[in-house]
Amino acid sequence: MSDLRERATALDSADPLSALRELFTLDDTVYLDGNSLGALPRHVPARMQHVITREWGSLRIRSWDESGWWTAPERIGDRIAPLVGAAAGQIVVGDSTSVNVFKAVVAASRLAGGGRDEILVDATTFPTDGYIAGSAARMTGHRVVPVAPADVPAALGPRTAAVLLNHVDYRSGRLHDLPGLTAAVHAAGALAVWDLCHSAGALPVGLDAHRVDLAVGCTYKYLNGGPGSPAYLYVAERHQEAFDSPLPGWTSHADPFGMTPGYVPADGSVRGRVGTPDILSMLALEASLDVWDGVSVDAVRAKSLALTDFFLECVAAYVPEGRVTPVTPAAHGERGSQVSLRCEVPAETEPVMRALVERGVVGDLRRPDILRFGFTPLYVGFADAERAARVLAEVLGV
Amino acid sequence: MSDLRERATALDSADPLSALRELFTLDDTVYLDGNSLGALPRHVPARMQHVITREWGSLRIRSWDESGWWTAPERIGDRIAPLVGAAAGQIVVGDSTSVNVFKAVVAASRLAGGGRDEILVDATTFPTDGYIAGSAARMTGHRVVPVAPADVPAALGPRTAAVLLNHVDYRSGRLHDLPGLTAAVHAAGALAVWDLCHSAGALPVGLDAHRVDLAVGCTYKYLNGGPGSPAYLYVAERHQEAFDSPLPGWTSHADPFGMTPGYVPADGSVRGRVGTPDILSMLALEASLDVWDGVSVDAVRAKSLALTDFFLECVAAYVPEGRVTPVTPAAHGERGSQVSLRCEVPAETEPVMRALVERGVVGDLRRPDILRFGFTPLYVGFADAERAARVLAEVLGV
Repeated sequence: MSDLRERATALDSADPLSALRELFTLDDTVYLDGNSLGALPRHVPARMQHVITREWGSLRIRSWDESGWWTAPERIGDRIAPLVGAAAGQIVVGDSTSVNVFKAVVAASRLAGGGRDEILVDATTFPTDGYIAGSAARMTGHRVVPVAPADVPAALGPRTAAVLLNHVDYRSGRLHDLPGLTAAVHAAGALAVWDLCHSAGALPVGLDAHRVDLAVGCTYKYLNGGPGSPAYLYVAERHQEAFDSPLPGWTSHADPFGMTPGYVPADGSVRGRVGTPDILSMLALEASLDVWDGVSVDAVRAKSLALTDFFLECVAAYVPEGRVTPVTPAAHGERGSQVSLRCEVPAETEPVMRALVERGVVGDLRRPDILRFGFTPLYVGFADAERAARVLAEVLGV
Repeated sequence: MSDLRERATALDSADPLSALRELFTLDDTVYLDGNSLGALPRHVPARMQHVITREWGSLRIRSWDESGWWTAPERIGDRIAPLVGAAAGQIVVGDSTSVNVFKAVVAASRLAGGGRDEILVDATTFPTDGYIAGSAARMTGHRVVPVAPADVPAALGPRTAAVLLNHVDYRSGRLHDLPGLTAAVHAAGALAVWDLCHSAGALPVGLDAHRVDLAVGCTYKYLNGGPGSPAYLYVAERHQEAFDSPLPGWTSHADPFGMTPGYVPADGSVRGRVGTPDILSMLALEASLDVWDGVSVDAVRAKSLALTDFFLECVAAYVPEGRVTPVTPAAHGERGSQVSLRCEVPAETEPVMRALVERGVVGDLRRPDILRFGFTPLYVGFADAERAARVLAEVLGV
């Protein structure tokens, strides 16, 4: 057994989170795509059978009250809250990330008040944020200014209404400086909107501590909520009273069953709702969140960094220099929970990932030349990291 | 046995749709709330176990391709299409009804072109349509003009950009004249947007035949898709190329995995997508639609009218005049698939419905004084209608 395999075994033995893997339905695949779709927690199928057969099938309409369906968006929001450093009452679950980006960017630009006509948008963003911010800007009389996160401080000014940033870059895995950038945005009198899709559940976010204004995130990556599970919206408590949603659906009304023609928004995080909550997807997410009981995000972060360090070390040891190049930063303070490797020969990217999947190592790719490997500390171990690097070397014909 | 009970038995025996009831999970409750949450089709739990354990749990990320997740929004849209009289390729499933109202009203106002600054909105609408239309108008420089459906023809003019109407009124059960009103809207050079929440699955709609421009609807009422199952958006083929969504999320992009910073919309119904589809809710809907295989909407409509006729007859026979008054029109051409009864004493509305539910007759109410009874022809029979009226009379202390 090689030295790295021995080290992996030792690291797994010493891993305080290793027992959590048993909570998930996994086979002998090395699943490094939890940054796209988290694995299934074992207890979710039984819970969903109950939801479907008992709550829908038997109680039917009574479940809106008796099974707690109506209050699910805020209840589940409050379970996500500690994972992203938010006090209760500020997160509501529902709709897709894209729809929540629209709510957040429009609301932020309104909160900024008149006289500020620019919305700065992370130029390296996951595309939907940029597309949706463009629509929000068009519909509120602002203009979008694309800017790389590192250049945001220089681009801020008296015209800046809001800034939309990704906490972790989906392509490179780079972690951006949420505390520093948020402070810079505030110093310019603007609002900071953060997209947490690639950070929530993988590392500490500290929304309240860093006085983030609004945030959105998906729940199907590191939060394991299931395919297309509903996203969430964070509106800091200090902004809730003035939060002016562009999607004022009936479930955000102060008296939804009054069914009055005039819209009067509810107080608190409920104001971020729109239409009828999609209960099946939402309750699968709620059940999935059970795996976090008693788990510290700091411990997850420590393991995540150890895993990605070790994977990078294995890649360096097994794969000859020049075949792939890490684009994820080496510095811990700039690294999310994935490792992205650029293929020297872009045309190899797709066949390499296909061959990896065939050999039981599941990652994904981003065109034209990025191999992505996501490390979910709840169920990925050090032996997985070593095997992934070893199989990558095999596939590259080393 | 009373005459009406004998008639109910005979009507059920002659009912060509009576066998469909066996496709649903029902107990001895008379379930007259399918216009709020449709009953559970029996085969859905097993199908969802497969989706959760096999597609999510085992195939994981591969299911986006191998299990057909990615194409589900249009595939399911094409299954709804024949139920609302639409050719394939014009309906996409996803998001809530409220979000789809926003897409449809904004897009319609843009399609109408400049110089038209009014959006007429059904003054009796389910409230969310009005709230969302108000936001759409505010963000596109239009103003909302509330107008009763019957008064729409007189309110139309050269300033009208779009008209948002409900096919069936959620409160009264009144069916509005979709063909006539759509023609009037077109004669004024405006676009007609119809909300089908209370008609799809209960009666013929004829979207294509009547040249409706855009339409939205929910799927958890007469389509039995499950609690909060995703809604749908219809964009008539002739408008698709110019359809300009206010929510241009990444899944509506012509090359979504190109992940380019510039938004280029896909052709066809895909353009109505926003974010990642909520797969669990969506595939429960898809499974539920199996109950429609071989079922004619005309037969459903015929049974619906016979059921509501018979229920009204039983109410008239059992409940002394003056205690409750039907507000649902007697004329077939003006009746949806529900019967709404106004309580003479508004304060009795809530206790009467509570007592009905306790005695196994489940309807619901709309404040201040409306008892609602929805008739889903797929699983409600004539004996149910007779029993509901009889128990209502008992509850009213007759």
